Amino acid sequence: VIKCAIFAIGSELLEGSLVDTNTAWLARRLAKRGVYVSMGRLLPDDKDTIMESFKEAAEKCDFVLTTGGLGPTFDDITAEVSAEAAGMKTEFYQPAWDNVVDRLSVYKIKLKESHKRQAFLPEKSHKFPNKRGTALGFAVENNGCTFISMPGIPYEMYHMFEQYVMPYIEERFELTEKHELDLRFANVPESDVDEAILEVGVPQEVECIINVSRGECFVKLRSFNDAVMKDFANKVRGKLEQYFMSYNKEDMQYLIVDLLKSKGIKLAVAESCTGGMIGSAITEIAGSSAAFLGGYITYSNEMKEMMLGVKKETMVEHGAVSEETCTEMLMGVSEKTGAECAIAVTGVAGPDGGTKDKPVGTVVIGVKCGNSVKIEKKFFRGDRETIRIRTMKMAFTELIHLLRAGT
Amino acid sequence: VIKCAIFAIGSELLEGSLVDTNTAWLARRLAKRGVYVSMGRLLPDDKDTIMESFKEAAEKCDFVLTTGGLGPTFDDITAEVSAEAAGMKTEFYQPAWDNVVDRLSVYKIKLKESHKRQAFLPEKSHKFPNKRGTALGFAVENNGCTFISMPGIPYEMYHMFEQYVMPYIEERFELTEKHELDLRFANVPESDVDEAILEVGVPQEVECIINVSRGECFVKLRSFNDAVMKDFANKVRGKLEQYFMSYNKEDMQYLIVDLLKSKGIKLAVAESCTGGMIGSAITEIAGSSAAFLGGYITYSNEMKEMMLGVKKETMVEHGAVSEETCTEMLMGVSEKTGAECAIAVTGVAGPDGGTKDKPVGTVVIGVKCGNSVKIEKKFFRGDRETIRIRTMKMAFTELIHLLRAGT
Repeated sequence: VIKCAIFAIGSELLEGSLVDTNTAWLARRLAKRGVYVSMGRLLPDDKDTIMESFKEAAEKCDFVLTTGGLGPTFDDITAEVSAEAAGMKTEFYQPAWDNVVDRLSVYKIKLKESHKRQAFLPEKSHKFPNKRGTALGFAVENNGCTFISMPGIPYEMYHMFEQYVMPYIEERFELTEKHELDLRFANVPESDVDEAILEVGVPQEVECIINVSRGECFVKLRSFNDAVMKDFANKVRGKLEQYFMSYNKEDMQYLIVDLLKSKGIKLAVAESCTGGMIGSAITEIAGSSAAFLGGYITYSNEMKEMMLGVKKETMVEHGAVSEETCTEMLMGVSEKTGAECAIAVTGVAGPDGGTKDKPVGTVVIGVKCGNSVKIEKKFFRGDRETIRIRTMKMAFTELIHLLRAGT
Repeated sequence: VIKCAIFAIGSELLEGSLVDTNTAWLARRLAKRGVYVSMGRLLPDDKDTIMESFKEAAEKCDFVLTTGGLGPTFDDITAEVSAEAAGMKTEFYQPAWDNVVDRLSVYKIKLKESHKRQAFLPEKSHKFPNKRGTALGFAVENNGCTFISMPGIPYEMYHMFEQYVMPYIEERFELTEKHELDLRFANVPESDVDEAILEVGVPQEVECIINVSRGECFVKLRSFNDAVMKDFANKVRGKLEQYFMSYNKEDMQYLIVDLLKSKGIKLAVAESCTGGMIGSAITEIAGSSAAFLGGYITYSNEMKEMMLGVKKETMVEHGAVSEETCTEMLMGVSEKTGAECAIAVTGVAGPDGGTKDKPVGTVVIGVKCGNSVKIEKKFFRGDRETIRIRTMKMAFTELIHLLRAGT
């Protein structure tokens, strides 16, 4: 197995002011090609610490990927340390400088002396173009371990990795595709999943990871043997059929947009406690306009009345968080937009606003697909963000059930 | 300086299917108390690897914080490894079992044999209650280094850390408050910031981190000497006054909600390419209902017409992404909702839908505050997510300018 280390470099990561998402992004892509990520580290902008990790990785891994520390500022030292760890120096590299000059002229940023730093790269290194920013990537050989460095800005790194770094890795290492299958379950206790898996028994050739996140449970299978993995997946699914959602590993809204598109129908939303989160999640999908019309963010009671025609009396009598109000929101958004499918949610996301009858976490979720309507009151534990996300996911779960029932 | 290591435990983290946010959250809180996080690691559910990191940390750090690996499933091994690294065993701990039983009965989940695992904790360890889940936390002493383990589910960990773990750390180590000041700049080139900082000169007692993210630049200052740090901050701000937004380190919408509340006025939004993201960002703030009415997600042209009264001719003649359409959206949402402040955005988020005239990344942003209106066409580089986020941030930036000008 090819082993790899991933270092996210930058003191801000160890100081907590920035969450490192690059490591997960890279690890995902490497896992698919059968690479085992054995080390994942956050490293401060400190020469000795980075050097020590490079040296440890050189002994344990086939290659190292670093992100960050290639910028023009004084604390960006990845190029120097990578070179030094491999017993080399940095040198001025004209094409890197040309890239900086070009890029800054496009961005209309004036050149500074400090930008020169970005043109000093390890000698004898392989260079990777950066089509989206100033800092080039590079690969340094060190006794059978390759140190590969990329910029830390995700948008730049993604492109460089996919276009240049991954092909470079593929050329140098014998990679084998690792098959992947994710089973997505909704509203199932983790221990039921665990029990089902133990009963079926995980085949030796299959890796199985269980992952619970805000109302969803993922069983992630990885194997070089596709047939054995699929057989195992079918058996696990068989034991948990009533909770099974999809083999889709993308977020649920992708499944919804696919279902809507395949039926040629459209969705509209009416959001109170989620405040636009549901619409935002759907429209993060490129091409979602084929399945999504839009919606109403009715955060206040006046807006529920004005935008959706919810009756004042309904809200006074039953409250803004009630089956009755949710039903009127759902009917309102359906009638106004003419969408075949609709979602309406209203709830107490907290931390304030809870009452004895309706504590923080009380939400009402309505979904409609053609003539089928489901209104459900739920109670979610968690902080404000968790309650909002679980509300959204429950709405998606229910809509998927309706969309499937309708076929 | 007290040194700490943070280990996020779970193979899913090194496989990229989950992003570790716990480390950043913990690091943030420790940094404020002057603790230096010298190691940050993602560790697989592998005994040898975790053991090795515990042993290394024992030599280099005063304490270790781990998150994850305390669940009931077969791959949860943190308790065993923590005990073994300190030369101990685990033992059945009745109150931990009682907590599991109580919790599961509240959640109406039936007890399984596998749940017993969560009651085996390192002998002689200090225990931390878990008021939000089944797994207790614990602290093991090992020759002057304390191994502290907490659950990986953020909602559970946050509460345990703040209520029990941080007080435990404060009792055992002499911590000193580290002062923090974050300067937030909008739309400034990083190299200008770097130059300003070098010109002023960073005092030896002040740590200075520059962080660029989608149109914003943060200068993060940390020091045990508050006066020296504030003096430095003022000088840097003086050099970059036209880009300066706030000392607020929270996201811009927090500043907006504060400004709106202090003026006693309200905001409504009309979102096309952001699809609800702006509303969602504002309503993530508890109590935002005092400043936010709601809005319209007008993802399709029909919805722009139906919901906001944008004229069909305007969209035909100038396009849906135009100053003209944006102006009508802005006026529409203001009139319909009666809000004093409004935001309207429309754009091409891509990856498809771009034209020669209006390539992907073209957006029009409109903000209104009382009688002041600003409509601006912008072009943002980046992927779909980046374009949507930059659109939102630019709208927030412009609204902040208007809100401030109005005082």
